[in-house]
This record gives sequence, C-alpha cells and structure tokens, in this order.
Amino acid sequence: MEIRYPNGKRFKIEESMTNSPVKKDGTIYGNRGMTLEDDLNESNTYYLTNRIAVIHKKPTPIQIVTVDYPHRSKAVIREAYFKTPSTTDYNGVYKGKYIDFEAKETKNLTSIPLKNFHEHQVKHIQSVIECGGISFVIIRFSQTDEVFFLEGKYLLQFWERMEKGGRKSITKKEIETYGYKIPIGINPRIDYIRIIDLIYKE
Amino acid sequence: MEIRYPNGKRFKIEESMTNSPVKKDGTIYGNRGMTLEDDLNESNTYYLTNRIAVIHKKPTPIQIVTVDYPHRSKAVIREAYFKTPSTTDYNGVYKGKYIDFEAKETKNLTSIPLKNFHEHQVKHIQSVIECGGISFVIIRFSQTDEVFFLEGKYLLQFWERMEKGGRKSITKKEIETYGYKIPIGINPRIDYIRIIDLIYKE
Repeated sequence: MEIRYPNGKRFKIEESMTNSPVKKDGTIYGNRGMTLEDDLNESNTYYLTNRIAVIHKKPTPIQIVTVDYPHRSKAVIREAYFKTPSTTDYNGVYKGKYIDFEAKETKNLTSIPLKNFHEHQVKHIQSVIECGGISFVIIRFSQTDEVFFLEGKYLLQFWERMEKGGRKSITKKEIETYGYKIPIGINPRIDYIRIIDLIYKE
Repeated sequence: MEIRYPNGKRFKIEESMTNSPVKKDGTIYGNRGMTLEDDLNESNTYYLTNRIAVIHKKPTPIQIVTVDYPHRSKAVIREAYFKTPSTTDYNGVYKGKYIDFEAKETKNLTSIPLKNFHEHQVKHIQSVIECGGISFVIIRFSQTDEVFFLEGKYLLQFWERMEKGGRKSITKKEIETYGYKIPIGINPRIDYIRIIDLIYKE
C-alpha cells in the first residue's frame, strides 16, 4: 500500500500509523472529523497566539537511512523508518512551569488499553515528575467524544498494577474517578490549561 | 550523492546538513572528534541518569510524502524532506522550570553569523521568555573549543539590531560580555545547568 499526497501536503501519520479513529467513507463523527491531535494543535495555537502557553507536538522520530542530494534540489530522504518515541509527544511552558503530556484516543467504550503507551514514555513521565514537571495524559473516548485529563502519577500506578499481573487497561470509571473531564469548547477546543490551573493553584 | 550507513545506524544530520565542523580525513579536533550535539546529548544523559534534569533534543522535523507498507515488514518512508524547525532543538525540565535552548557551532574565530538561527526559532525564543521559561543558546567556537551560554533575551537584542540594519552576526566579544563561558568537563561535558543555577538562583 502506498499513500501519497500529490500536493506535497504533510502526510498525517496519526491517521494511518496509530489507533486513532479512521474516518471510513468520509464519515464525520461528533468530533467534526478532527482527530485528537488536530484538536490539540488547534488549542496549542490558541494558547500561543494569546500568549498563554507555548506547547508544541514533537516531530515524529524518524531513523534516516538514505538521503539523496539531487543537483540544485532539496535533499530527499529515500529510506527511513518510524522509531518508537522515547518521550511523550507534547511539551512546553506555562507560567514558567514545564508541561509534558501524551495524548491517546480509543474507540473502546469502557477502558483504554495500556498498550497505547510505550514503556519508554512511562519512564519519561516518571522522570518528569521527579524533576518537578507537570505531567499528564489526555485520553479521548472517540465514540462519545469525551476527553479526560489524568495526572501522570496515576498512569504510573495503573502501569505498575499491570506489571504486577493486574489488568492491562485503565477503566473509564477509574479515569472518571482519578482524572478530570475536559469540557469541549470552541476555542480552545480542549482547554487542558484550565485543568492545570485547577490542580496546581497555589 | 548518497549517504548510507550499511548497519542501519542513525544518519547524523548535523554533520552533513548544518555548518558543524566536518572532520576531514578523520582528523580529531580538541573536542575529541565529537560534535556539539554529541556533547550535549551526553550531558543530557548524565542529567537524566542522575535525576537532575530531563532535557531531550527534539527529533528533526520531516515532511513525509510517500510511505510503503511492505507485507509483514515495517513501514518504509520512501520520499520525505527536511523541514525548517519552528522551535529550538532542545527542551525539558529542571527543578520544575521549563528549559529551552538552541545549540550552534561555528568555525569562525571572532563572531557567529545570525543566519545560523531561523526566524521561527527567534520568535519561539521570544514566546518562551514571555511565558516565563528559561531560554538560552549554547554557542561553540569549534576552532578553539570554547562553549558559551547566552540568554535568549540577548539573542533577541542582536537579532533586532540586524533587522534594523545592523551587523548580521554576534561578535565573540559580545558573547563574552553578555554570556557565560561554560567550562568543558568530563561528565557532564557541557554543564550548562551550572550556569542556570548561577543566573536564576533564588
């Protein structure tokens, strides 16, 4: 299978490489056809434009094997592979504080499988917490378009439970208990900074 | 021209794509043949291992055009291009604070040309400062193996000077005046956190 955008537009890795909800036959879901990543990028642009926070999604890590340098043209990568991320996808600054999070969505109705997270990411979350950073995950249940904010420390606990032989997922009930539901707005669409204000008010 | 590592090892973009010092004929410079990026990665590993700070280099941003999905094999990127970075290369957390920097080296002896920085990066540095983050650049004069720490606010001033028609570089003299020389050590090799402690001691 080959995917190519003839106009050279950015290839959207999330739609084909992860377990994001794929829009079959152009069906538009409650989320207006936007992925969690789209919504977060839009929210981050809002934060940046309004000088509230500077949060960016990190580029997808790529292992480059072959590069061509055509005469008088831009370098072309001819062979490269997707690498497993060693950190979370999003980070940045809010009121001088370090913000770090991972965003995942699931089509499941009652839980999110922990296999959505890589072990390296979980270790990264632990390191960030140890160094005083604000760490969390944003989880979207795509069928109901519900978005939750779960602090990193709870992800670590659920991960540990799995490693001790417990369940391999976090139930939605648990996310509702330990996390915060983020109301879906217009602009910003996913106002996670509001939750940070709520948790870390000094 | 085609560059390929037969062992599939990571293609080092810094050595061929930027103005890093290229080691001709395997010549080892004072820096023991390591690039500034190597040194910083090593220092960051030291900080991480010793739970001092979590700082990572962001992956190189790539615009992916074509991906093959060979049967029962990993996806292979067949056409992709290097994108201009819209942020700085390094960020992370130290004592809860957001740390953000760009690293550049020059073979010049008396100044570093401002064309080493992209306008997007300069705007990013400004945004980071506005949101209370700790922003700086690490500049290495490769011929003398001297490494300097210059706060982002000064880079902005020199950039503005250029935009007003002034010189298109920062002189080494200015860097010595407004910045801090980072002593080169063994482990960590470039202990920039020590400079942060010095500047931001509370």
